[in-house]
Amino acid sequence: MKIGVIGFGRAGRAVSSVLLESKKTNLQWVLRRSHVLEHRSVPEFLGISSEEPGLIYSISEFSAENLLQRYPVDAIVDFSSEDGIQYYGEEAAQRGITIVSAISQYSDESKALLQRLSESTRVIFSPNITLGINFLLITAKILKNIAPYTDIEIIEEHFKQKAETSGTAKVLCNALDLPESAIKMVRAGGIIGVHEIIFGFPYQTVRLKHESISREAFGNGIMFALENLPEQKSGLYTMEDLMLPYFAMSIGPEKLTIQKKNPWWKFW
Amino acid sequence: MKIGVIGFGRAGRAVSSVLLESKKTNLQWVLRRSHVLEHRSVPEFLGISSEEPGLIYSISEFSAENLLQRYPVDAIVDFSSEDGIQYYGEEAAQRGITIVSAISQYSDESKALLQRLSESTRVIFSPNITLGINFLLITAKILKNIAPYTDIEIIEEHFKQKAETSGTAKVLCNALDLPESAIKMVRAGGIIGVHEIIFGFPYQTVRLKHESISREAFGNGIMFALENLPEQKSGLYTMEDLMLPYFAMSIGPEKLTIQKKNPWWKFW
Amino acid sequence: MKIGVIGFGRAGRAVSSVLLESKKTNLQWVLRRSHVLEHRSVPEFLGISSEEPGLIYSISEFSAENLLQRYPVDAIVDFSSEDGIQYYGEEAAQRGITIVSAISQYSDESKALLQRLSESTRVIFSPNITLGINFLLITAKILKNIAPYTDIEIIEEHFKQKAETSGTAKVLCNALDLPESAIKMVRAGGIIGVHEIIFGFPYQTVRLKHESISREAFGNGIMFALENLPEQKSGLYTMEDLMLPYFAMSIGPEKLTIQKKNPWWKFW
Amino acid sequence: MKIGVIGFGRAGRAVSSVLLESKKTNLQWVLRRSHVLEHRSVPEFLGISSEEPGLIYSISEFSAENLLQRYPVDAIVDFSSEDGIQYYGEEAAQRGITIVSAISQYSDESKALLQRLSESTRVIFSPNITLGINFLLITAKILKNIAPYTDIEIIEEHFKQKAETSGTAKVLCNALDLPESAIKMVRAGGIIGVHEIIFGFPYQTVRLKHESISREAFGNGIMFALENLPEQKSGLYTMEDLMLPYFAMSIGPEKLTIQKKNPWWKFW
Repeated sequence: MKIGVIGFGRAGRAVSSVLLESKKTNLQWVLRRSHVLEHRSVPEFLGISSEEPGLIYSISEFSAENLLQRYPVDAIVDFSSEDGIQYYGEEAAQRGITIVSAISQYSDESKALLQRLSESTRVIFSPNITLGINFLLITAKILKNIAPYTDIEIIEEHFKQKAETSGTAKVLCNALDLPESAIKMVRAGGIIGVHEIIFGFPYQTVRLKHESISREAFGNGIMFALENLPEQKSGLYTMEDLMLPYFAMSIGPEKLTIQKKNPWWKFW
Repeated sequence: MKIGVIGFGRAGRAVSSVLLESKKTNLQWVLRRSHVLEHRSVPEFLGISSEEPGLIYSISEFSAENLLQRYPVDAIVDFSSEDGIQYYGEEAAQRGITIVSAISQYSDESKALLQRLSESTRVIFSPNITLGINFLLITAKILKNIAPYTDIEIIEEHFKQKAETSGTAKVLCNALDLPESAIKMVRAGGIIGVHEIIFGFPYQTVRLKHESISREAFGNGIMFALENLPEQKSGLYTMEDLMLPYFAMSIGPEKLTIQKKNPWWKFW
Repeated sequence: MKIGVIGFGRAGRAVSSVLLESKKTNLQWVLRRSHVLEHRSVPEFLGISSEEPGLIYSISEFSAENLLQRYPVDAIVDFSSEDGIQYYGEEAAQRGITIVSAISQYSDESKALLQRLSESTRVIFSPNITLGINFLLITAKILKNIAPYTDIEIIEEHFKQKAETSGTAKVLCNALDLPESAIKMVRAGGIIGVHEIIFGFPYQTVRLKHESISREAFGNGIMFALENLPEQKSGLYTMEDLMLPYFAMSIGPEKLTIQKKNPWWKFW
Repeated sequence: MKIGVIGFGRAGRAVSSVLLESKKTNLQWVLRRSHVLEHRSVPEFLGISSEEPGLIYSISEFSAENLLQRYPVDAIVDFSSEDGIQYYGEEAAQRGITIVSAISQYSDESKALLQRLSESTRVIFSPNITLGINFLLITAKILKNIAPYTDIEIIEEHFKQKAETSGTAKVLCNALDLPESAIKMVRAGGIIGVHEIIFGFPYQTVRLKHESISREAFGNGIMFALENLPEQKSGLYTMEDLMLPYFAMSIGPEKLTIQKKNPWWKFW
């Protein structure tokens, strides 16, 4: 699968390195606003030995039309900024190129654009594209359904300089219908990012915890998205949408396949 | 729902107290081997104010036929020992009484009996009947499907006197197709019971953790089983089977209902 | 060492059972306000086989003078309520009986009384008499001295019904000169009590964590106090005071004894 | 304080950046075996704006005598390999330059050399030079003294590729007189490094935990060593030796200063 990356900040670099190392994807190019590093090779810059082209271009060198004409791709991975989509969106959608966007914040206008583009191509949008967080989001919702009487609290820990509440914690809080006071913020030293959802039962506690080790965590999420593209050729999807089939998978049409595969007496 | 409890050790007492406190269940009696406490009232013994009959009988006072004739129940909850089922099994199945068994170890013979009984009544069997552990078991299997490349390790912590590896840890290990060396045993002081499943991704870690506070944890599991009895009138079920529909619930017939309920742009 | 216990609530019972099981202490009696259980045997009531007298008396049966005359003790352990000290304080001090008080809150008047009593006997006072918490208190202060540039946060987790901030967390916060906003309260289900002090360094994190399993934790603290009574025959002491010598112990007069015992090249 | 660094692998770079950013130290040079990066500026290479000289030299360019003559320093920080000390040791000791070595493994011969050098200069040697780990080492030993009846277990978590037991865990284990079976190894994904010492009491648990975020953690340890150089001009020291005075500090000559500073009634 031929991939183009938009944005070459810390997350963009991390993701490029995962794409280069995967045999399933082929990094065609990286596009960025700045002229710094123009025409340098991404594999060389990142110190990864790879035959993939992966040159760095500046956004001012091409129109999106020219870029996608000369260097066609199957999917664009966007780690740039809110207005990146203005540059390549229409052109990509027209060519049926899958769009994977990890931008944190979109204006209502950009959201409307994404929605429109999703009528002609697959658009996958997730501000936190790590596998772990999205997995926690779904399982926490299921556990709340199973045990609605539990008390749920969220601890999020980050480095001292991060002043505001983590966006991911807010999403978790929102998805679980909790008041924002359920989020407990810890700010200390250089903690990269910890999210813990605590379910308090009367006589037991369940803790679902995610720890970020580095920004490269985005890479696994992007790979998961690319490997699990929805079958429909168009539509707007979140990471959750791509992950839910794995939750359904365990359940067969009539009976429960987990049980079939593992007869209970062998299981316990 | 009228309930009879077999066994009045620590777990049996804990569960009786949860049953007495629930408005959905009515504790008819407790049956035990010993004559100690014979004909005493369970609510009084446990210090719970309740109108439910709940008298303690000795197994030598009645045949199962007499017992179930004079004091009929809808479900029997079994926290006794492996051969309890020999006493009441046939009689209960014949009357269509639901059997909920939390016995840790059954011989092959007893397993065969359970299987046979399940042809005429609902038999729910789970050696670890806590909600949290069974939830972890399912979600861990799903996460392994989503990210088969992760390294999975299990830490189980218990009090010093518990010499052998926790049975629950073995079940988790088995269900996740891990070698037994994946289980790390910690034995220290009076720790009641902690199970943690660690998923190591290259740049992130997911930890699913269950902490027991006291044996009453079984109570919530029993209540969950009783509230989620399978619709079929007969069959053999695990806690997992009763829990899986909650995982399926989130997924509608054509599209994904989670997405419908929470449009993505509000969600993130 | 002959011990009398004042108060027979949950903490008082827990401590009595630890005292009965220790060979170093001999439980003479338990005194309580209520007439319930009067003249019953504590070992029998708690189901512990022991030759120690340990009868339960009501406070209305004796004056403190009569009690201490007929049933003399070396130390009184007080888990009653704020005004317990009014009953036995003067009489105990006069006889040089050591007083170990674990009352949570004293009025200024009672504090003044304690202070006065401490002129004629040893008074050990600690509202949270668990070993672990007091150990954390001291080590956290030392670590703050070693690395004053770290960010310190405190997480305290308790059961849902506990509305107010934990008193222990406030003590930790106060001792570390932190603003009260450094305390993050988690309230969920039946969590008995967790206190975690997080030290955030730029590139590492140190976590000092205490988990209560049950109220019997007080027992070990009391035993520690009784085994480490200050040599001076009078004075007012905290658990910290009794524990500090263990911190000093490691440091010899000229050189460091830890180093002597473990030559560095064997050590690493 | 003028500093020279030997070794420019990942740890050497991390430490150089901390030294450059500190106002108390002035990085004179970095010496390495390889010719790569020869005569490049460390601040420039690491992207840190600094006026400090900090040039990179190759070991083949100078004898130690020439190097220390032309570019004198107060202390040498050694992150090279076991035989680095052969190159600069004698020369540095003769000039009274403080040696801070973080080499993991020394042969007996090198240990004997270190010992000899320590007769004429200060030698600080610690294979794990992070503050947190050394702090844990001391506090764990103290807690074992306070509560010798506790069960102690060590969990160490590292990335999948790390086959052998962590050296730091072995040191902790050794210092606490535990059998090596007390160490529980978790190997999963990209975990950088977690060490947790668990103290199991009958009714409570104390956990002392250290998490590495990145190799720069060494930097704070080196800075601590440089800021707390022993007053004696010669001698062999560990990080523990430099840290112990902070433990002693709290204890005054006659009474306990902690108590003085914080009268107990204000404290609790």
